[in-house]
Amino acid sequence: MSGEVARISMGECLEKVRKTCPLVHNITNYVTVNDVANVLLACGGSPIMSDEPEDVFDITSICGGLNINIGTLNTRSIEAMKVAGKRAKELGHVVLLDPVGAGASALRTKTARMIVDEIHPDVIRGNISEIKSLVSGSGTTKGVDADAADTVTEENLDTMVQFVKDFSSKTNAVIAITGAIDLVADANECYVIRNGRPEMSKITGTGCQLSGMATAYAVANPEHKTEAVAAAVCLMGLSGEIGWSRMQEGDGNSTYRNRIIDAIYNVDARTLQEGAKYEIR
Amino acid sequence: MSGEVARISMGECLEKVRKTCPLVHNITNYVTVNDVANVLLACGGSPIMSDEPEDVFDITSICGGLNINIGTLNTRSIEAMKVAGKRAKELGHVVLLDPVGAGASALRTKTARMIVDEIHPDVIRGNISEIKSLVSGSGTTKGVDADAADTVTEENLDTMVQFVKDFSSKTNAVIAITGAIDLVADANECYVIRNGRPEMSKITGTGCQLSGMATAYAVANPEHKTEAVAAAVCLMGLSGEIGWSRMQEGDGNSTYRNRIIDAIYNVDARTLQEGAKYEIR
Amino acid sequence: MSGEVARISMGECLEKVRKTCPLVHNITNYVTVNDVANVLLACGGSPIMSDEPEDVFDITSICGGLNINIGTLNTRSIEAMKVAGKRAKELGHVVLLDPVGAGASALRTKTARMIVDEIHPDVIRGNISEIKSLVSGSGTTKGVDADAADTVTEENLDTMVQFVKDFSSKTNAVIAITGAIDLVADANECYVIRNGRPEMSKITGTGCQLSGMATAYAVANPEHKTEAVAAAVCLMGLSGEIGWSRMQEGDGNSTYRNRIIDAIYNVDARTLQEGAKYEIR
Repeated sequence: MSGEVARISMGECLEKVRKTCPLVHNITNYVTVNDVANVLLACGGSPIMSDEPEDVFDITSICGGLNINIGTLNTRSIEAMKVAGKRAKELGHVVLLDPVGAGASALRTKTARMIVDEIHPDVIRGNISEIKSLVSGSGTTKGVDADAADTVTEENLDTMVQFVKDFSSKTNAVIAITGAIDLVADANECYVIRNGRPEMSKITGTGCQLSGMATAYAVANPEHKTEAVAAAVCLMGLSGEIGWSRMQEGDGNSTYRNRIIDAIYNVDARTLQEGAKYEIR
Repeated sequence: MSGEVARISMGECLEKVRKTCPLVHNITNYVTVNDVANVLLACGGSPIMSDEPEDVFDITSICGGLNINIGTLNTRSIEAMKVAGKRAKELGHVVLLDPVGAGASALRTKTARMIVDEIHPDVIRGNISEIKSLVSGSGTTKGVDADAADTVTEENLDTMVQFVKDFSSKTNAVIAITGAIDLVADANECYVIRNGRPEMSKITGTGCQLSGMATAYAVANPEHKTEAVAAAVCLMGLSGEIGWSRMQEGDGNSTYRNRIIDAIYNVDARTLQEGAKYEIR
Repeated sequence: MSGEVARISMGECLEKVRKTCPLVHNITNYVTVNDVANVLLACGGSPIMSDEPEDVFDITSICGGLNINIGTLNTRSIEAMKVAGKRAKELGHVVLLDPVGAGASALRTKTARMIVDEIHPDVIRGNISEIKSLVSGSGTTKGVDADAADTVTEENLDTMVQFVKDFSSKTNAVIAITGAIDLVADANECYVIRNGRPEMSKITGTGCQLSGMATAYAVANPEHKTEAVAAAVCLMGLSGEIGWSRMQEGDGNSTYRNRIIDAIYNVDARTLQEGAKYEIR
């Protein structure tokens, strides 16, 4: 995807978001929606939420990107995803799919695949189990968390890098698989990212937050979607590290949630540039 | 609206809320609903949420006021808004309309106007673009934020004061337009309020929170709705100032959100009285 | 319920949750859902939310327990409650009912009773007014809060203990009535719990949070459901005490919410064991 254009830095990606304030339409679950909105504001974007089929055509038209998250899908919101997704693609907007819980129910797997096949999202972000269920239906899922058997590790890294490049090639989307090690790939190259902290999994919605932010990053950097999504992934992980460094005795996951969003709000281009831990394979 | 009754102080308005604990029925969006509930509790009110047409008749009947917010409207909740709105008015309850995103989609504009025309809310609170779209359909909206071209400034203040008084006269509602300068008006007089901080726009839902709180204030002060809504607007802005004064290095919009709600919880009549910055035109 | 099995300690209940990480399916209101998810993570469980009838059969099947909360019920979610509830019981999962606002509307009262009669939940947790409305329809409710006339006090404690044991006997469920004094009972014995702080009522959703956590506790301790629910109630109250002890000048209900969840995250078996304040009658 970024083949013909010179690479830009993660710091430049961040600055483009802060300068252009991309408006992102979110059709997302009601569990983490408030955090998604605050993270979009923290990173320099602007959120709007709508999941009514009669409303989404107009709403997505005035935005730059669409974040589709199937976390608490229902028949109404699935229809809204279709309407908004088609309209967003017609207008050349960035569409991101977060297939929350794909593999955990037939409806979620079917809906996620329908969006991949009919809408052709520009970016797909999920955990490894969710992504596997999109590929082959062979993934297992423990609810909304990845199955341990699927984890990306140093041992299976080469295989996983190839897997994610292949899936990108097949879908023509930037693929982001997040976990202890994060992978962000297009058909040609894969960012292997080692930011973040394990305690982030004790906060609901860090994945959803990242999906909202990655949409804003891709909207603001349309010629560099792979780098932009990788920058968003590094920023999320780095903010988890910064947030953790500010934890005091007695603090727990609720305060940690606040401190991560606070960190996203405060990270500047240089901090991201220096704190991002990744290699490209 | 307040023509025949002696004006009361903002501090008195606050104390009436704390003494009477008004129960407010909210049909509101799922993005900011938790903050709306906590702000209602913080200011001394009591929240209840329901958006099912079969449920709202009973629920609104036991409340003192109804806060209708169209932020994530759908066909079901629009029906609930009608049922609850009519019932609330029959019972003489305060009804407030927050036309979130009016002007951004045909459905939102149409729904907001339907509520104005059929329910006759006692209070309408929105940003300038939303209010303009109610008047003439001529407003533009950048998603859920006001369009810069519409902003209330010192330069156009006289015109805007007249505009809001006229709209109040036409709708027979107290009108609150919030932004860098806030205007709260009935047909006869307009509070020009200069509390608040620009960073409040980096938190999702401060407008929604204010709408919930303004409903409680109007319920507790039925003879002084204009003053009560103005007091709620001052309290929101003042809490933004107090919250900001407690920010530490590294804090961002998530912590700021908490500190604002904390401030609403702690402000007493005297603090509001001394901190409110307004003139009446 | 715990008649034939030796009692275990509250600390043991807590450790079982942390060791087994019970996956809990929540059909819950959108007001407090984010806090419910973070509390489930804080206590060592894992949350998943789904309220679409076509989705819940699969989702509940992979979980260990189901938390049904009628706080913002609608016709779709009521259908989902039935489908999920029946499936969960077929599989021998723990089902908890939180009858939010039962007594405040006909639909809520009817739905809560339908769930009691048709699903036969293992645990029912509510305030005294809600529980009374399940028994006889005679309870009064002030919105989602208990009516003062219904309060459990030292004076009527003996009567209330008998009332809750009788209701447990009738429904074959563990009954938890929370308020200034909490009661958790099966047909044979009743935990009278005096943890907690009055300021907890100024935070939206501490009851909903407790219901999620109590489900996880019952799932992890299937042979000791009464003790497990009592342990969850003590943990919630104790966390309210610990959270309060960390409040600083200027903090309010929003910070208090965070500190309570933080405390749940940090409390270990010994702290719970030593901090739980209860007697068994």
